Amino acid sequence: MTPHQPSGESGEDRLIARYFRPLAKHPGALGLADDAAMITPLSGCDLVLKTDGVISGVHFFPDDPAGAVAKKVLRMNLSDLAAKGAAPLGFLLAIALPQEVAEAWIAAFAQGLSEDIEHYGCPLLGGDTDRTPGPLSVSVTALGRVPHGTMVRRSGAKPGDAVVVTGTIGDAALGLRLRQDPTAAKRWNLSEAFRDHLLERYLLPQPRNAVSELIRRHASAAMDISDGLAGDLSKLCRASQVSAKIEIARVPLSPAAQTALAADPGLMDVVLTGGDDYEIVATVTPDNLREFKSAAATLGVAVTEIGRVSGGKGEAQFLDSSGHPLSFARPSFSHF
Amino acid sequence: MTPHQPSGESGEDRLIARYFRPLAKHPGALGLADDAAMITPLSGCDLVLKTDGVISGVHFFPDDPAGAVAKKVLRMNLSDLAAKGAAPLGFLLAIALPQEVAEAWIAAFAQGLSEDIEHYGCPLLGGDTDRTPGPLSVSVTALGRVPHGTMVRRSGAKPGDAVVVTGTIGDAALGLRLRQDPTAAKRWNLSEAFRDHLLERYLLPQPRNAVSELIRRHASAAMDISDGLAGDLSKLCRASQVSAKIEIARVPLSPAAQTALAADPGLMDVVLTGGDDYEIVATVTPDNLREFKSAAATLGVAVTEIGRVSGGKGEAQFLDSSGHPLSFARPSFSHF
Repeated sequence: MTPHQPSGESGEDRLIARYFRPLAKHPGALGLADDAAMITPLSGCDLVLKTDGVISGVHFFPDDPAGAVAKKVLRMNLSDLAAKGAAPLGFLLAIALPQEVAEAWIAAFAQGLSEDIEHYGCPLLGGDTDRTPGPLSVSVTALGRVPHGTMVRRSGAKPGDAVVVTGTIGDAALGLRLRQDPTAAKRWNLSEAFRDHLLERYLLPQPRNAVSELIRRHASAAMDISDGLAGDLSKLCRASQVSAKIEIARVPLSPAAQTALAADPGLMDVVLTGGDDYEIVATVTPDNLREFKSAAATLGVAVTEIGRVSGGKGEAQFLDSSGHPLSFARPSFSHF
Repeated sequence: MTPHQPSGESGEDRLIARYFRPLAKHPGALGLADDAAMITPLSGCDLVLKTDGVISGVHFFPDDPAGAVAKKVLRMNLSDLAAKGAAPLGFLLAIALPQEVAEAWIAAFAQGLSEDIEHYGCPLLGGDTDRTPGPLSVSVTALGRVPHGTMVRRSGAKPGDAVVVTGTIGDAALGLRLRQDPTAAKRWNLSEAFRDHLLERYLLPQPRNAVSELIRRHASAAMDISDGLAGDLSKLCRASQVSAKIEIARVPLSPAAQTALAADPGLMDVVLTGGDDYEIVATVTPDNLREFKSAAATLGVAVTEIGRVSGGKGEAQFLDSSGHPLSFARPSFSHF
């Protein structure tokens, strides 16, 4: 147990004042100088609440840039808000710092956070800073809002709905493999640009908050893909008590992922189950599909139909070009 | 980095389903089976937001009972809501578990949490479960509500206000000393019951949510005492740009603390700066004081006036029986 430390203005107070108070511009953050934050919810809106965190050596590499760590943990939570159709209201940050973390690391972390606070319009409302004898960890609790009763759930998919995904699938999982085994870039015939694309997609999620309002208006069910398309779509199917048939050939891949798969077709398992995509998988009634896709395209987000929902017992089947279902050794990412 | 684990229904899913889903009875928790939780705020209310956490070996002893750890971390956050005059709405839980934690520990943790969820009417809304190579840690984000514009801040104290505290001060800090050095019980002439009282006050905070509504109606400023009365009152004074003069003889002490102090008067420093009280220090206009004290008493909470607010530069002075100000080696607890 830590004995009580000599302190007037404590080290914690000083760190907060120097690096985090400048980020807390929202009036409800009270300059991080009170015991709690305060927000006035918009009348007629529901609050959407999410908490997710990262631990050094588990969810990111200890030598990842501090700014990227800050952005990753915030974006993981923003991605959930996007998939639920919610606009960000703000977030609380809990950070546990080992003694050996340099102040420059904290400065870079705060700088990265500041950039995303501006970019996503998601203000810092409050936080908690501690020293830990363990690895550095950061936990975010994000708040969003939707008009009352309109949060998009996992459970609304109906037989006949189209299954769509945003962006491209599998890049981050391939990027993680490259990070773990840099020699794979050569085996996969990747140019430097393709390798960097995959590494970047792992390092820094690009959550789809640009289309959260469209998700809310058009999707019957949605979730963000954090644990792999195969496993996450299975969860959506179970929650909706439907099944889904996906044509693997229609799953959108980046040119970099296509190149890697051409060199090693066995990587399709990684692409579909690897996780860290932070794209959105959604179900949409066919009537809404065209409008949804075209509105998303004007916002710069590709939406691709990859299959259809049918009745059934809550499975997601991934069919190869001959119509045979793939079976995965490990359909969904889990730390357990 | 953890490689992706084989999983259908993952170990994490199973743990959540078995131990945490039964706690998530609030409809907005969606059975912990969606990506986010959802609540509909009461019209005309502000939300009060707080995040605070504990790390094994830093904020609690590794051999503390799991149920007590669960209660401590929730109550630390409830205590802040109480001091801000807020009624609890619910909380999100982030827990990082080392591999070696037994399932029985998790079961006991969930059981303790369940008891407090019922007792304080603060439902579990959502959470995040991870494995960590470091010490066990738990972070809570609590949400409360107050009528719009009525959150009690640190910054409202006015010259002439009475300074009051709930309950008794210093028990938990003395309990921590006893935990660190069990032989102190004898030196301090403590009976078994007195020793157990102090140990229990350290192990299990008793937040003052019973009087949160009274705090909201009567206090000009308030905060909970988590880092020691001396340091926390100084923070309140700085935020309010006032000073306070406290008569040490008026600081309410339990019979156990009185016994220890009689044996070792030097412990007064521990009592006033030791932290973990989870009582509330508040300032109240003299006109409101009698009504506040008597209403709190009917709710079973003693409220004691310990001094007065004056103008000045943001100091809290603690005066001994001859009127001389005490100086503390370490006025406020800090992990840094």
